[in-house]
Amino acid sequence: MAETMKRWVIDAYGRKHLKLETVPIPRPGPREILVQARAVSLNYRDQQILEREAGHPLEFPFIPGSDLAGVVVEVGAEVTRFRTGDRVITTFVPGWIDGPRPGTARNPSYLTFGGVKQGVLAGYTVLHEDWAVASPATLTDAEASTLPVAGLTAWFALIHQGALRAGQTVVIQGTGGVALFGLQLARAHGAQVIITSSEEAKLERAKELGATWGIHRKTEDWVEAVWRITGDRGADHVLEIAGGANLGRSIQATAVGGHVWVIGVIEGWEVSGPVGPLILKTVNVHGIMTGHRRSLEELVRAIDRIGLKPVIDAEYPFASVPAAFNHLERGPFGKIVVRLD
Amino acid sequence: MAETMKRWVIDAYGRKHLKLETVPIPRPGPREILVQARAVSLNYRDQQILEREAGHPLEFPFIPGSDLAGVVVEVGAEVTRFRTGDRVITTFVPGWIDGPRPGTARNPSYLTFGGVKQGVLAGYTVLHEDWAVASPATLTDAEASTLPVAGLTAWFALIHQGALRAGQTVVIQGTGGVALFGLQLARAHGAQVIITSSEEAKLERAKELGATWGIHRKTEDWVEAVWRITGDRGADHVLEIAGGANLGRSIQATAVGGHVWVIGVIEGWEVSGPVGPLILKTVNVHGIMTGHRRSLEELVRAIDRIGLKPVIDAEYPFASVPAAFNHLERGPFGKIVVRLD
Amino acid sequence: MAETMKRWVIDAYGRKHLKLETVPIPRPGPREILVQARAVSLNYRDQQILEREAGHPLEFPFIPGSDLAGVVVEVGAEVTRFRTGDRVITTFVPGWIDGPRPGTARNPSYLTFGGVKQGVLAGYTVLHEDWAVASPATLTDAEASTLPVAGLTAWFALIHQGALRAGQTVVIQGTGGVALFGLQLARAHGAQVIITSSEEAKLERAKELGATWGIHRKTEDWVEAVWRITGDRGADHVLEIAGGANLGRSIQATAVGGHVWVIGVIEGWEVSGPVGPLILKTVNVHGIMTGHRRSLEELVRAIDRIGLKPVIDAEYPFASVPAAFNHLERGPFGKIVVRLD
Amino acid sequence: MAETMKRWVIDAYGRKHLKLETVPIPRPGPREILVQARAVSLNYRDQQILEREAGHPLEFPFIPGSDLAGVVVEVGAEVTRFRTGDRVITTFVPGWIDGPRPGTARNPSYLTFGGVKQGVLAGYTVLHEDWAVASPATLTDAEASTLPVAGLTAWFALIHQGALRAGQTVVIQGTGGVALFGLQLARAHGAQVIITSSEEAKLERAKELGATWGIHRKTEDWVEAVWRITGDRGADHVLEIAGGANLGRSIQATAVGGHVWVIGVIEGWEVSGPVGPLILKTVNVHGIMTGHRRSLEELVRAIDRIGLKPVIDAEYPFASVPAAFNHLERGPFGKIVVRLD
Repeated sequence: MAETMKRWVIDAYGRKHLKLETVPIPRPGPREILVQARAVSLNYRDQQILEREAGHPLEFPFIPGSDLAGVVVEVGAEVTRFRTGDRVITTFVPGWIDGPRPGTARNPSYLTFGGVKQGVLAGYTVLHEDWAVASPATLTDAEASTLPVAGLTAWFALIHQGALRAGQTVVIQGTGGVALFGLQLARAHGAQVIITSSEEAKLERAKELGATWGIHRKTEDWVEAVWRITGDRGADHVLEIAGGANLGRSIQATAVGGHVWVIGVIEGWEVSGPVGPLILKTVNVHGIMTGHRRSLEELVRAIDRIGLKPVIDAEYPFASVPAAFNHLERGPFGKIVVRLD
Repeated sequence: MAETMKRWVIDAYGRKHLKLETVPIPRPGPREILVQARAVSLNYRDQQILEREAGHPLEFPFIPGSDLAGVVVEVGAEVTRFRTGDRVITTFVPGWIDGPRPGTARNPSYLTFGGVKQGVLAGYTVLHEDWAVASPATLTDAEASTLPVAGLTAWFALIHQGALRAGQTVVIQGTGGVALFGLQLARAHGAQVIITSSEEAKLERAKELGATWGIHRKTEDWVEAVWRITGDRGADHVLEIAGGANLGRSIQATAVGGHVWVIGVIEGWEVSGPVGPLILKTVNVHGIMTGHRRSLEELVRAIDRIGLKPVIDAEYPFASVPAAFNHLERGPFGKIVVRLD
Repeated sequence: MAETMKRWVIDAYGRKHLKLETVPIPRPGPREILVQARAVSLNYRDQQILEREAGHPLEFPFIPGSDLAGVVVEVGAEVTRFRTGDRVITTFVPGWIDGPRPGTARNPSYLTFGGVKQGVLAGYTVLHEDWAVASPATLTDAEASTLPVAGLTAWFALIHQGALRAGQTVVIQGTGGVALFGLQLARAHGAQVIITSSEEAKLERAKELGATWGIHRKTEDWVEAVWRITGDRGADHVLEIAGGANLGRSIQATAVGGHVWVIGVIEGWEVSGPVGPLILKTVNVHGIMTGHRRSLEELVRAIDRIGLKPVIDAEYPFASVPAAFNHLERGPFGKIVVRLD
Repeated sequence: MAETMKRWVIDAYGRKHLKLETVPIPRPGPREILVQARAVSLNYRDQQILEREAGHPLEFPFIPGSDLAGVVVEVGAEVTRFRTGDRVITTFVPGWIDGPRPGTARNPSYLTFGGVKQGVLAGYTVLHEDWAVASPATLTDAEASTLPVAGLTAWFALIHQGALRAGQTVVIQGTGGVALFGLQLARAHGAQVIITSSEEAKLERAKELGATWGIHRKTEDWVEAVWRITGDRGADHVLEIAGGANLGRSIQATAVGGHVWVIGVIEGWEVSGPVGPLILKTVNVHGIMTGHRRSLEELVRAIDRIGLKPVIDAEYPFASVPAAFNHLERGPFGKIVVRLD
């Protein structure tokens, strides 16, 4: 094995400071594994963190990225969960195995890879064995890298907590990574999906993926359209990705007793909405930011069994991380993945 | 039985138009019961409706009031649920027997007594037999009249949906009707209660009723106080009664995975809050506006078995309804009841 | 409209007493509808009731059958839910609209069509408007008639209560009506299905319908097979249809925290099992006998949206009801339907 | 600190082989803590294991006992959860932190202290830091030692999973350790409790503890009594402790949609019951054998806040363990505790 590896870091806030550097490959401790990276999936949040929009204080040099797929190349003496050669992906929130998310009311947990904690845009990463999950056998590493944030967020909201079922209607805002996982997972459970977007071409692609209806946000009143499509009933679930005052519109679009899942990609913003429809329809609004490890393992099992293939808009070589971020900023259809193989 | 009765009505929006008039006593249809009023409990919402703040279009002459306790004096030919002499209370939402609340996403149901529908501030009221519930045997009529809105709202949120349990912490904002039911019900399930108020005297009275802690909203940062009292964990449940930007503060006070119950007394307002703590703590925000009839029956059974006595701040004779509304406006400690016996 | 109709009745216990007679067509009361039968689906229970195995006391002459699909031909003066010409199906338990099943601990409710109550194997049937649901637009009447018992039982267990999801494994015993609905509904939610049967040909047909695995009950130890197929994990859900000591085997086949749904077709029998695996795996055993009307409406919506087609093994003309019962006794693959059109 | 300690062991199956021996005090590894025993609570299961009734293969010399309360006297280098001087209790199932119980369908987990694993009837015990929980501040060590099995089993069933609430009725069979915790916890949540026993004196003591009704099992038909007491409704929850054919009677006593919690003290036995009331009342039967660590922590918090005091029938000095087992065999009222201080 090589002695050194490359990694992307910033020394100051701002994407423009991204640089590739060469450092020694780290060694795993007793309960740690060393993972050779094969693919890293980017999230819009990575960009916000680099630009300090997310409000996290970073320790420089800082490695971005949270979603790693790779292969275990070395294990510490006490490791029992993995062996050399195992394909693994990261868990986004280190230590969240099951049950409630870590943190307290006063101090919510910001501890995530590529957030407060160092990220994974490097040739090799050392992980505690509890912070990794076996990759799905049916996915490539590029595809597997999309699960820890985008896949798990959609699964944890709609399936794990939401218990979505056939015959229900889901409104999904946009066509980013979480959105398209939401679309695919809802379809795999027999639900019908209404996608909203401001680009006709993306609506068409979403329909090819199984979206039952597409609503153009700029030419139509999307809440009115949801009411019309559902015969006034409204949506059983809304994946609220836009945030801000859009929450109020999502509540208006929601059926009596329905659920709005506020997804975590746009941190630090205010959400707002009218209390009337909230209480008259007993709507439930849930904050969601990925999920626990057991749920990720369930997602992996589901993906292997139903043959779901994550939607990757583009793959970039490791040397082209800045170009990958540029693409991310333009708004991809699904995921952007950086490949290291 | 008399031929005529008195009732309070308005002929135009505004409490100042309240007047007492004499009309014939109505007769029940085949599936209806005629209830002689013994007590009517007022809610802040009644005032909002009179002043058109709630946005409901009313049909004049309009009888205010939704929460009636009385005795069945006549039953229609097909009535099976009640007999003459039975003590009953109203259900707030006619026809909501079980399961989801009536209404659709486009048209949430405003159909409530003393709302769109005519109210109960009258000597006699005709009710469909499905819209009444047997009164608790252990309560007076004045006490029983406080259950349909204030009691059921607290029960439906904290107990029916919230499954509150011993060792949990509940934050309750204020000392109105819903608030004090929340306090008593939480204590009856072994939970500890933090009451917030802007009046020291009310905090003292709340402690006498079992509140574990009182926080003076004007002299203390109540969120900081909740964090301190709970050792940073936060509250498992918050009864959000104030609305508006206070929702954001409630979310901050809430524990990881906790619940904020947005209560329906202040209709038509905007709520808002920061998305960061919502998603990092996976907080759940639920709109609540009373509950279904089966839940009201469970509350009645619980009250009879645990001996809970609703807190009535003052009782007014039927002739003094305007004075009762004045008291309501000043902010009572618990409930205001109009008596007709 | 004709003045008379035909109906099947017995005057004494025993299928051999089935006879076709001509009687006047009944008239609906104020809240009733008159339904012209198009199809009646038979259940194994119908046979048990005729033979007095179910223990119900019947009132002779007794009309068998509970699952009716037909068209509304007349409505009572106060009917609001349906109009003439509407296609409808029956609800199996009259009056179970939502929430808990009717009945008490002392007196469980036996009140079902074709049970204590008169059945539907007749040219016309009068129903309270609350006891019918609109037929799925995408199903024929023959198909629609299979929903009230077989379809709803599978849906209420696995989907409504069980919240089945993709990646889970369901064991389904046999290939009768409930079993094949369970298979189709589980597949529609992304779950994999293990079917057990004592006939190789039925296992093959089940696989064509989507069963992931088939286990021949006579040549294999089915519990051992479930363990092997699931990598020791066991099944998340078992549809327990056989009853008796088989419950113990179902518990052994169930995953930690999994669910066994004891289905109601074989009434009056003892179930038994070892307590060790029950408690060490915290297994949950649930009694199920169809579901409430709201759940049937959700099933109808789901079927229309996912395009599920019930499996009908054979259809018989109304004159051949005895032959239909003979087929039922031999053990059909899916449902037996009697057609009246 | 001393170099040696005493401990109780058997070298062959059978309580008669119990002997006290002196061995060196063990040392904790890096993530382990050394706990000096203050109290050990016995369970009926301990006796079954000694007599090989539970079917577990033991490794001799075998130390019995699972429920330890003590004080941390030494911590390993990597321990973060505890410090020297902390009062702790054991978790019954090592490694069950949250979520589903360990084990698979094929291999349910028997791994418990004093079961397959060595027990705690010793002066000192080494524990992985993850397998202990801070003792309640308001309980003595003797009281605290009763929580890991008896307290947690009742809490996990009735409160954590059962979400018991005020106004509900619980039937509790007997007056052993789990039974009396069930009684106290149900009362603390406003439920009423029916205790069954075959000893009038124990019924009287149970009533002093808050039982609403006592049923003498030998002089009354307890199912009939439950129906009568509940006005035919039946019990919302039954703590099924007897096992065997009694399960059938418990199902008969249960309300529509109610729950029977099959408790794990009588391992290896068959349970049985009639399927009729199971399905007609949609009864839910759940296997329970203690609970996860998070739930134990919630129980500790609840106990500290509501002031619940476990019922200890007798305390024995460490030298009198055989006498303690004799008492256990006679059927104590509540718990038997061995003290080491």
